[in-house]
Amino acid sequence: MTTQEALNTYREKIAQMKALHHAMGVMHYDGATAAPVESAEGRGKTLAYLSGCAYEIETAPALLEAVGFLNAHADELSPRDRREIQLFLRENEYTASIPQEEYVGYVTLLNKADAVWHKAKQDSDFASFAPIIRDIFATNVRFAKYYKPDQAPYDTQLSRYERGLTMEKTDAFFNALKERIVPLLKKVMAKPQVDDSFIWGKRYPIEAQKQFSDYLMDVITIDRKRCSIGETEHPFTTMFNKKDVRITTHYHEQTPVYSMYSVIHEGGHALYELHSADELEGTLLRGGVSMSMHESQSRFLENYIGRSKPFIELIFPRMRELFPEQLAGVTAEQMYLAVNKVEPSLIRTEADELTYALHVLVRYEIEKGLFDGSLAVEELPGIWNAKYKEYLGIEVPDDKRGVLQDSHWSGGNVGYFPSYALGSAYGAQMLAKMKQTVDVEAAIRSGDLRPVTGWLEEHIWKYGKLYDPMELLERAVGAPFDPRYFTDYLEEKFSKIYGL
Amino acid sequence: MTTQEALNTYREKIAQMKALHHAMGVMHYDGATAAPVESAEGRGKTLAYLSGCAYEIETAPALLEAVGFLNAHADELSPRDRREIQLFLRENEYTASIPQEEYVGYVTLLNKADAVWHKAKQDSDFASFAPIIRDIFATNVRFAKYYKPDQAPYDTQLSRYERGLTMEKTDAFFNALKERIVPLLKKVMAKPQVDDSFIWGKRYPIEAQKQFSDYLMDVITIDRKRCSIGETEHPFTTMFNKKDVRITTHYHEQTPVYSMYSVIHEGGHALYELHSADELEGTLLRGGVSMSMHESQSRFLENYIGRSKPFIELIFPRMRELFPEQLAGVTAEQMYLAVNKVEPSLIRTEADELTYALHVLVRYEIEKGLFDGSLAVEELPGIWNAKYKEYLGIEVPDDKRGVLQDSHWSGGNVGYFPSYALGSAYGAQMLAKMKQTVDVEAAIRSGDLRPVTGWLEEHIWKYGKLYDPMELLERAVGAPFDPRYFTDYLEEKFSKIYGL
Repeated sequence: MTTQEALNTYREKIAQMKALHHAMGVMHYDGATAAPVESAEGRGKTLAYLSGCAYEIETAPALLEAVGFLNAHADELSPRDRREIQLFLRENEYTASIPQEEYVGYVTLLNKADAVWHKAKQDSDFASFAPIIRDIFATNVRFAKYYKPDQAPYDTQLSRYERGLTMEKTDAFFNALKERIVPLLKKVMAKPQVDDSFIWGKRYPIEAQKQFSDYLMDVITIDRKRCSIGETEHPFTTMFNKKDVRITTHYHEQTPVYSMYSVIHEGGHALYELHSADELEGTLLRGGVSMSMHESQSRFLENYIGRSKPFIELIFPRMRELFPEQLAGVTAEQMYLAVNKVEPSLIRTEADELTYALHVLVRYEIEKGLFDGSLAVEELPGIWNAKYKEYLGIEVPDDKRGVLQDSHWSGGNVGYFPSYALGSAYGAQMLAKMKQTVDVEAAIRSGDLRPVTGWLEEHIWKYGKLYDPMELLERAVGAPFDPRYFTDYLEEKFSKIYGL
Repeated sequence: MTTQEALNTYREKIAQMKALHHAMGVMHYDGATAAPVESAEGRGKTLAYLSGCAYEIETAPALLEAVGFLNAHADELSPRDRREIQLFLRENEYTASIPQEEYVGYVTLLNKADAVWHKAKQDSDFASFAPIIRDIFATNVRFAKYYKPDQAPYDTQLSRYERGLTMEKTDAFFNALKERIVPLLKKVMAKPQVDDSFIWGKRYPIEAQKQFSDYLMDVITIDRKRCSIGETEHPFTTMFNKKDVRITTHYHEQTPVYSMYSVIHEGGHALYELHSADELEGTLLRGGVSMSMHESQSRFLENYIGRSKPFIELIFPRMRELFPEQLAGVTAEQMYLAVNKVEPSLIRTEADELTYALHVLVRYEIEKGLFDGSLAVEELPGIWNAKYKEYLGIEVPDDKRGVLQDSHWSGGNVGYFPSYALGSAYGAQMLAKMKQTVDVEAAIRSGDLRPVTGWLEEHIWKYGKLYDPMELLERAVGAPFDPRYFTDYLEEKFSKIYGL
């Protein structure tokens, strides 16, 4: 075998894997957006077959032999090919450690889980979802042990989403946040509350909200020829290639703000995917490198841009145009305060910037307990509610607005939640660095966000998965990760808003 | 090998083929409804790979050996299994006669064709679509020759859609229609025209039209848990299994009638697919048996039910509720006349019942000419326009409203058009038979259409592909096909409406 032959075999198999994952991705997207409710069973069968095909390709002797050869001849490869082979081996080691039957069974389970979760959430019926969640966590623990028998399963899982992340590091990170956020939140809550009554309770027609989405997508520089918007219960982003990215949102008739920030948040994910360097297309290196890095981009757009004062001033005229009666007499300044209102609340996706990390903390601690067995699934609603009382000071009235609110666990995204808080902190450090060379406020005010998105493309997006996330961050900001940029940002912003 | 072993091999392979076709079907549907415009290239690659996989399974020696064995031991099979093996062999003979590369190339061509057609139609630019249409027809001619070297390619193609159909039979059928329809149309056009001005030109909000769609789906007894509605330029129906059928419609803000009849028409297709007998699920026998039989059901719902007077009387109160200002002062009787207005027009899908067959005739004659080489692709717009002048007496102002109006050719549905006219004629014969035992008008008036849909389920839908279409029709109506039921129906209905 020559290196070129091995590369050809590798490329051919990767293209086949990508085709299968593309088809599965479209079926998942369709299942969440367009498919009739009873379609889940048939989709499950097809997904099981396709994932079996993908597994067979990923573990085919011809491919593994080629990859082994390439790995042994790494010095003959370009740095890019070398990195791709390294990533393949990492992922393959995980997949190959799982017996095929169990792998296919897990895909079938997840497909079923989505419908069960939807119904359980609708009926606020945790008991109907409990067996599924037990299965999903047990499967992830089992898989983690197949992969790294000597490592705590939750460390394995955290590191799968964010290379090198451990419970120790995550504990330290959350402690640093708690230390600053909890006292800051207390000071804020002692001050008079801002008024956001005008963005609630009136009727904001979906049709106008859709026009608002289109406008927002334009403002944040998304190429709509390569990115569409669907509607789902819980917004998400999915991506098939550089020319086919999908975001979803959820329109609530009572407020335009929920969908507005869903669109901007998911738009941040989409931008990251849409701007991998062209030469990475078709390789495993295309697309965002980790969940945290992805969340750093989505939350960058959502909060550091979308909840800034110049951004609200920029978009407010269009908002007034679309909702003239609903927003009669409201100023941009009032809107800015309203979208930054701090108030401990039940739903993570609707949480303000300041309390958000506390929602994540609750989930992190619960996942930790489920993984190490110190927590049983039946205890989940009780523990959830107790932690919301402890960290956020609020009572959870039902599981629909409690432990059943997120789609992550039913989607198998276990160990993902810490990414949200880490992402915010990464983003704050990027913002500080960006401001050294870019006048961010002026760019937003001008309505041309390209200096901002250009910086992100240049320092983050274009690299795809060429570097591990911590290295990518260090290269972008020129220093190790430091959560203090995030806590400093929060303190400065909310001190001003609440006059501390 | 035992018969049971051969059956097991067969069932396993069929399940895999069905899974691949399910995935491809969802990708096509997604491509038409939700995908961003630049996604076509990536989708094309994935579809090419999946169709290659399907081709490999369909032509795998193990499967063909099993099928050969089952065919040789047909006497040991149940009638249902025997029929399934017969259908497999028929279809396989066609597929296996085509070199794999050409087969995959054709799938890639069709995927590209859709986007090219969309743009060509939008710009009314036939020249940009001409090379594609030339390729599609040439490929179909080539494929037909691979399959039946000694038969006229268009006969081969007609019979693929409707077993046993030939140009000779189709010519005879259209002659029988022309003989009655052309003089009837002349008499109608000499009478004062009915007024349909109130269903055009006002603004009918899409949101209310969507509610109207939901209502119509309920009235025609469609189980929405198994059937969803999407939006596309050109409405269609697609089906993946008994629990997952999709129809699409197109909402025009200026009139509720276009989408109304799209929904009822596609709903007819959906009903046929949703009501195959349970025991056919997972076999090749599930679903409609032919395009003509499918059109007989869709046009049955659209015309014999949806354009009947009792149906308009039934739904009119709901229409008035949804569009109170737009329909102020309009009566059900006026609406009945408006939706049955006869007027030679440009667009097939908007044509009235009487002139509809003439639109189909134009397409049939053009396809015949393209297949036998007597017509070149460059001549298409000219010939199209000349035939519209000759049969319908109207001038075609541009190709957008002429030769570029239908999606069929870009979708590879060549030889399909005669099905529409045949389907109407089948349906008329079914209606006459049904009326011998079912009080159709009373059922519609009562709002409970189940006696009507029950008859169709009992005599047509439940059989799936168990019988060839002509046999299925004969079993249902107890007599050979006779187009006179259709022409009699037209004469009676339009004589009354126009007072002839």
